[in-house]
Amino acid sequence: MERISATYYIETPFTVEAAAEVLAGEQSSGTFVAVPGETAELKQRFAARVESIEKLETVSQPAIPGAVSKNSTYQRAMITVSWSIENFGYNLPTMVSTLQGNLYEITQFTGLKLMDIEVPASFSKHFTGPAFGIKGCRELTGVEAGRPLIGTIIKPSIGMSPEETAGLVETLVEAGIDFIKDDELMGAAANSPFEDRVTAVMKVINSHADKTGKKVMYAFNISDEIDLMQRNYDTVLQHGGTCAMMSINSVGLAGVKKICDRRELAVHAHRNGWGMLNRHPLLGIDFRAYQKLWRLAGVDQLHVNGIQNKFWESDDSVVRSIEGCLAPMLGGYQVLPVVSSGQWGGQAPETYRRTKTTDLLYMAGGGIMAHPAGPAGGVKALQQAWKAAVEGRSVQEAAAMYEEFGLSVQKFGK
Amino acid sequence: MERISATYYIETPFTVEAAAEVLAGEQSSGTFVAVPGETAELKQRFAARVESIEKLETVSQPAIPGAVSKNSTYQRAMITVSWSIENFGYNLPTMVSTLQGNLYEITQFTGLKLMDIEVPASFSKHFTGPAFGIKGCRELTGVEAGRPLIGTIIKPSIGMSPEETAGLVETLVEAGIDFIKDDELMGAAANSPFEDRVTAVMKVINSHADKTGKKVMYAFNISDEIDLMQRNYDTVLQHGGTCAMMSINSVGLAGVKKICDRRELAVHAHRNGWGMLNRHPLLGIDFRAYQKLWRLAGVDQLHVNGIQNKFWESDDSVVRSIEGCLAPMLGGYQVLPVVSSGQWGGQAPETYRRTKTTDLLYMAGGGIMAHPAGPAGGVKALQQAWKAAVEGRSVQEAAAMYEEFGLSVQKFGK
Repeated sequence: MERISATYYIETPFTVEAAAEVLAGEQSSGTFVAVPGETAELKQRFAARVESIEKLETVSQPAIPGAVSKNSTYQRAMITVSWSIENFGYNLPTMVSTLQGNLYEITQFTGLKLMDIEVPASFSKHFTGPAFGIKGCRELTGVEAGRPLIGTIIKPSIGMSPEETAGLVETLVEAGIDFIKDDELMGAAANSPFEDRVTAVMKVINSHADKTGKKVMYAFNISDEIDLMQRNYDTVLQHGGTCAMMSINSVGLAGVKKICDRRELAVHAHRNGWGMLNRHPLLGIDFRAYQKLWRLAGVDQLHVNGIQNKFWESDDSVVRSIEGCLAPMLGGYQVLPVVSSGQWGGQAPETYRRTKTTDLLYMAGGGIMAHPAGPAGGVKALQQAWKAAVEGRSVQEAAAMYEEFGLSVQKFGK
Repeated sequence: MERISATYYIETPFTVEAAAEVLAGEQSSGTFVAVPGETAELKQRFAARVESIEKLETVSQPAIPGAVSKNSTYQRAMITVSWSIENFGYNLPTMVSTLQGNLYEITQFTGLKLMDIEVPASFSKHFTGPAFGIKGCRELTGVEAGRPLIGTIIKPSIGMSPEETAGLVETLVEAGIDFIKDDELMGAAANSPFEDRVTAVMKVINSHADKTGKKVMYAFNISDEIDLMQRNYDTVLQHGGTCAMMSINSVGLAGVKKICDRRELAVHAHRNGWGMLNRHPLLGIDFRAYQKLWRLAGVDQLHVNGIQNKFWESDDSVVRSIEGCLAPMLGGYQVLPVVSSGQWGGQAPETYRRTKTTDLLYMAGGGIMAHPAGPAGGVKALQQAWKAAVEGRSVQEAAAMYEEFGLSVQKFGK
């Protein structure tokens, strides 16, 4: 019988073996006392199994509150636990409740982070994965392999009218941008009803596509309740749009899957709220596991933060996230990593040096909007930055070669 | 114009004022550089506002990774920030992205927890709240005010066939239980298809109701993708069931709201995965804020853990959670606190002493199933425990008065 496995980074004041068994029991057939009916046969079929234990360092202080060690020693370890597919079948929310549920409450752990998930081959029959993925998003935007899609976020994030937004979009599409998105704060503000924004923006994009053959992808933030997301999705489709954005943590797994299942628009997955799930080193979920869940749900584009970002995350972590998205899963399920946060092009050489990929959606908000030569200069600067990055040039070399990128370095470079 | 406010427990190496302004900027009209279009008028209308700052203790070590203090001083504080209703209207997922989104990534914080949310009166027009609540759940089960609903979880959590489950349900309903639920690990296991389980269980419950007039509430775990949840919901309805259970973190806000909106079954909200969001004192979300979001979504029953539970959480925290659920919101929105985790009745006197309420769904799993006189003895023991608790008796007094509860004390008491 196929099994699903999960790897956890744990910390415990007890023996790792004992703590792992508590997790396996709590998350399958056991509870705090033996109960009638928990037969050997039932356990054989449904009990979770501790597959491996790798002991790591010990520390003298617990990472998070839990049971107290008598000798002030907390053992860290990497453990892998597996469950039979018979426990939850292809029910994604119940899989999450099994791999990521009450186990975070277990007092025997003073640290617990879900690091990775492995799902068996039969998942590919039940989860069709991203409808567009990297290849499809390149086709929709007409961006051939060899460079990233260059994108931007409408800024100010909130407050502009549909007409003001469309005016900015006009500048951006004329400047040669590939992708534009709503901010996650912008669903439908009082002065920017969703349908009005779509109408105004798509008029500009469609008109530009008619003239040039290039249809810029605009990710409209459809996040809302299910019926309203469906209506928003229809609105985008009716106006010839190609992409819907959702705040995946806020909408949730069932809602996101329902929208992805339509497979008519590329889905841009914004991970806002992610820090809550990941910022502590020994609590929550690592991006490696997280991105697999959302690829199963079917998102086409997924945020990974950026190198030298404005937030707290380290470059190493961002690089691992990009690698995670690009690693094959179930023979496909390609998801386009969305690089953003404080990006202005100066990070392109380092991003390319460390990841050796251009299969990215590279996003700059302020880096484009606040460019000294205006948004058009900002887009040009980003294209130059990536050309230079792929050619192996440094920021300094690129700044000397390219005028607009040079201006970016003067304004945004430290 | 109405405003929505959020209170955060924060820690920062900078001045609290500066860090709070970064949060307000990032979560409304600002970004990492000034951008054209962020006019004074736009800011006046859409910018988030820091309403209050209450400085608390300083510490020398940061709670979570972030910016480093030059003088090893990290200031903690309680801050309140507000947004105009014009920013996101009544879009619940976008409200969550605003109050609980990228702010967890901000490097200026070395700790950030959303403690509470206040929504304005107009929310009551857009969110109808729980369809049944405390009063409706009492009516559905025929349990009058003055004692909690007594409930149990089918154990072993997973592995029993529909017939075995129905056999156990028969014992429990004959013993006088008010409520039974699936475990969150049990959606549809290979040997317990959802419809077969509903059919077998409801046959027992309906037959008992026909005989006695008392219909026991069974919370079937419908958690799955949207369409399958709808199908499961229909199945429960068709068989005369009265309750649907969802793992709310795994299903997500949009999916849960969609199901609650049907308002035909009471919704039992299981918070598994909650520890991931709350276990660290300075990261994530406090239950006080969390329960408000789910009351807006419309759940009728919400898990709060239990006094002297088997998990890591303190009694103080559990008491606060119960009080949070029972505090009025928008003139109603009553949600029934679900007390569970290692409960066997011995905690009833302390639970009542600290909360002075019987508006609870008091759940015991192993405490009923593993009772020395069998499940019937377990149910009786719980009823006795609560009778004694309301009469103000101690565990010892109650054990001496009541035979079945006395047996519980012998087996489960320390």
